[in-house]
Amino acid sequence: MATLPRDVLHFPAESRSFLEPHLPPKDRGNPSPFPFTTVTFATSLDSQLALSPGAPTALSGPQSKAMTHYLRSRHDAILIGVGTAVADNPSLNCRIEGVGGYGGEGLDGQPRPIIVDPMARWHFTENNKIFQLCREGKGRAPYIITGVTNPPVNKEAILNAAGGKFITVNVNTTDTGSHRLDWKNVLEALGKEGLKSVMIEGGGAVINSLLVPEYFSVISSVIVTIAPTWLGEGGVVVSPPRRHDDQGRAIPAARLENARWYPFGEDVVLCGLFRS
Amino acid sequence: MATLPRDVLHFPAESRSFLEPHLPPKDRGNPSPFPFTTVTFATSLDSQLALSPGAPTALSGPQSKAMTHYLRSRHDAILIGVGTAVADNPSLNCRIEGVGGYGGEGLDGQPRPIIVDPMARWHFTENNKIFQLCREGKGRAPYIITGVTNPPVNKEAILNAAGGKFITVNVNTTDTGSHRLDWKNVLEALGKEGLKSVMIEGGGAVINSLLVPEYFSVISSVIVTIAPTWLGEGGVVVSPPRRHDDQGRAIPAARLENARWYPFGEDVVLCGLFRS
Repeated sequence: MATLPRDVLHFPAESRSFLEPHLPPKDRGNPSPFPFTTVTFATSLDSQLALSPGAPTALSGPQSKAMTHYLRSRHDAILIGVGTAVADNPSLNCRIEGVGGYGGEGLDGQPRPIIVDPMARWHFTENNKIFQLCREGKGRAPYIITGVTNPPVNKEAILNAAGGKFITVNVNTTDTGSHRLDWKNVLEALGKEGLKSVMIEGGGAVINSLLVPEYFSVISSVIVTIAPTWLGEGGVVVSPPRRHDDQGRAIPAARLENARWYPFGEDVVLCGLFRS
Repeated sequence: MATLPRDVLHFPAESRSFLEPHLPPKDRGNPSPFPFTTVTFATSLDSQLALSPGAPTALSGPQSKAMTHYLRSRHDAILIGVGTAVADNPSLNCRIEGVGGYGGEGLDGQPRPIIVDPMARWHFTENNKIFQLCREGKGRAPYIITGVTNPPVNKEAILNAAGGKFITVNVNTTDTGSHRLDWKNVLEALGKEGLKSVMIEGGGAVINSLLVPEYFSVISSVIVTIAPTWLGEGGVVVSPPRRHDDQGRAIPAARLENARWYPFGEDVVLCGLFRS
């Protein structure tokens, strides 16, 4: 057996078992146009993903990182918003022992990275980490979901050379002029690519736009890790838009059903789903 | 045995046992000038206490309410800020079966309500719930901690008639002109009253002002209940002031040590403490 890369991660069987009921079925015959969609992220007690966009924020322990990579190995695709791509220069591959590039064959178990970039504003070159990993056989090239019908040819060339592509979907322009993708269009586009499961990882804008009643029916599973830390005012907050009832009174924005809490090292992992 | 009031609460022994390591010792010989101080509150996943100040927000299940009352029975005093007193017209008594007024003798197990009101702005009459409960033998009269040296005589008369009082401590005026009590002064004043333990319940301003390094050494225990609900932007948020390191970089504001997570119905209860 080839030597494993030094950054390979291990995730023990006993931790895998509690996650199993919350993951895509391994053999999925579901004819739904939507992939099995898992929303997952890690926050502080004050519901923050990071001290600021792109700031390295060591919230959770090493076993939490291994869990994220195990979850990636269980999905056909992993998805982030353009804000995170710009801020983080992310790897978006899977480093669990046994997947392709980490002891496994070819690209087996490596998820497809998806970047949601309505205006195709993400600037990248072939030196971005994600393309380096492709060349090393440690990850797949990204698909970029955009609303732009003719994305820049230089970016398209880099993507295509690596095995990735742009996928164009409809963009809605809101009253305030900001550009939003409809998540159902995005997920349906992924389904058409044959991706049967997707793990949506962030960042804040993506998560907050998903935790609204319009999308409860297309979210199959929610997995939130919470660390016993308060980051303090001013970070990247997960808190969905406020909801109101018929009389204009504020009501809770979203509640998980079948909530299960799993203590996990110093953290807790919350798994649940939305009433559809 | 007298008939119990209809609103009496029960809290099962099996739930009591997981809390025990996080509670004031039953026989406390500690000569510290500070009471055993527990900070406890319930939030949503987005770290909110309520949809708005004073809004009834059913975050947690009935067992969580019973837990709060059990915790009250285990402290000599329970403390809230004036904002909560104004917004909630709170009862601030204990309704667990077996305490005074709920099957027990006299006022046994009824904690002393403490209201922190730097400018003595809380407007109350003898018709406030808290004084009604006093008259019914179901709770103690409040002590109001203030920075005002001569509190209004009419308020003082109502307080004194019920068995309560004003307690004056030093107030610091901040650069922005707001009035703050030093928590060490407040806690020391409670210690001088012979109160060996205090449970600080809220609201947001009180909690956020406590979760700062200056007070880590006087907080003995932190108990946070989290419900699997996002309230949505705009509510009453728990998030302490941002901290910076020597180079001016943002760092996490506070981290619990010895964090333990206890799944509790649909909620989770997090217990921990600060490194002093």
